[in-house]
Amino acid sequence: MTQPLLDVSPLEAALQRFADARDWNGFHTPRNLVLALTGEVGELAELFQWLTDEQAARIAADPATARAVRDELADVLMYLVRLSSVLGVDLDAAVREKFIANGVKYPPLPGR
Amino acid sequence: MTQPLLDVSPLEAALQRFADARDWNGFHTPRNLVLALTGEVGELAELFQWLTDEQAARIAADPATARAVRDELADVLMYLVRLSSVLGVDLDAAVREKFIANGVKYPPLPGR
Amino acid sequence: MTQPLLDVSPLEAALQRFADARDWNGFHTPRNLVLALTGEVGELAELFQWLTDEQAARIAADPATARAVRDELADVLMYLVRLSSVLGVDLDAAVREKFIANGVKYPPLPGR
Amino acid sequence: MTQPLLDVSPLEAALQRFADARDWNGFHTPRNLVLALTGEVGELAELFQWLTDEQAARIAADPATARAVRDELADVLMYLVRLSSVLGVDLDAAVREKFIANGVKYPPLPGR
Repeated sequence: MTQPLLDVSPLEAALQRFADARDWNGFHTPRNLVLALTGEVGELAELFQWLTDEQAARIAADPATARAVRDELADVLMYLVRLSSVLGVDLDAAVREKFIANGVKYPPLPGR
Repeated sequence: MTQPLLDVSPLEAALQRFADARDWNGFHTPRNLVLALTGEVGELAELFQWLTDEQAARIAADPATARAVRDELADVLMYLVRLSSVLGVDLDAAVREKFIANGVKYPPLPGR
Repeated sequence: MTQPLLDVSPLEAALQRFADARDWNGFHTPRNLVLALTGEVGELAELFQWLTDEQAARIAADPATARAVRDELADVLMYLVRLSSVLGVDLDAAVREKFIANGVKYPPLPGR
Repeated sequence: MTQPLLDVSPLEAALQRFADARDWNGFHTPRNLVLALTGEVGELAELFQWLTDEQAARIAADPATARAVRDELADVLMYLVRLSSVLGVDLDAAVREKFIANGVKYPPLPGR
């Protein structure tokens, strides 16, 4: 895959400015960010823990929980992108490489 | 924030084509994807569990572990984007809203 | 290892009575409990995410956070024991088997 | 609740001896153990991620996966107990306190 699959560079820059303006760079170590990411994934899981599959499929359409779901997805993404920045990992390149590996590992069904 | 912070639409489309070509859409329920995301975050955490902060900061530069780190970051991102697609959540809008809320919750330091 | 390493049978019974008295057994499916366990581990991780190793070592002695740490450890344990019960897994036997396997995988240092 | 709900003291002692014999105490910091716990919960989640609720309920009876489930439950418990030890938390007391709090927060149904 030679075409880019994603562009998170404006988000990376915005997260950097946000950290700079609050003197948070010292807190943004890789291990801290992995723990923070774990925390946000836990909050996301809590939204789904007692739902049936049918309820889960409609969760983002439910006014009572849509906001919470959107917020948790955003939190997970922001910590993931911040972690990648801090580690110097190009997420687009990493995803493209993984796509190629997955395509070899799991071949498409015949005729698709 | 009115400017887009991220664009993952090519990745969303690629993940949909990947699932279509393997008849995986039935597996991609929200709860399944949350469990899969949890699994990948766990694998990411394992890479960092016995490292010092100094070792962790250099992990992506270490040839022995750089590949593993890139792969796990990619896996987390792919499941997160797939989950958002399945739920019909616009990640860019969700992130922009969260940024505004965070800016209110955590004001910048004076003069920044 | 033939000696028991743990006894959680009173806790298993108490959790069963608690679920019975609230008609919660239908919610206590394995996948729901795995998601709930993930959520509690996430809450535990959040307590440690911005701490230095020195601060983390003293967290349970800090009056401000000791209660939160104890509560999260208890929550993780309760969901883990409940999950094991629902799956019919004998945790003591499982732990003893794992200890033996770990002892083979990681031999003790010479002279210890 | 004044009766003990659990006894993990033999496991605590065994984990301490295991660490001593391998010079692992320096690795067993709270934050390292939280990351390790996260990793094991992730491995547990992976066993359940593509299963229906019916398949999940039978997972520990399935010879192909029973061993893996038992091992992951044991791993989660061992890291949880080790973390509690390192933090000086009495898990039995913590669980009894949480039970009382939960009983107030979620009253039993009438007549139960």
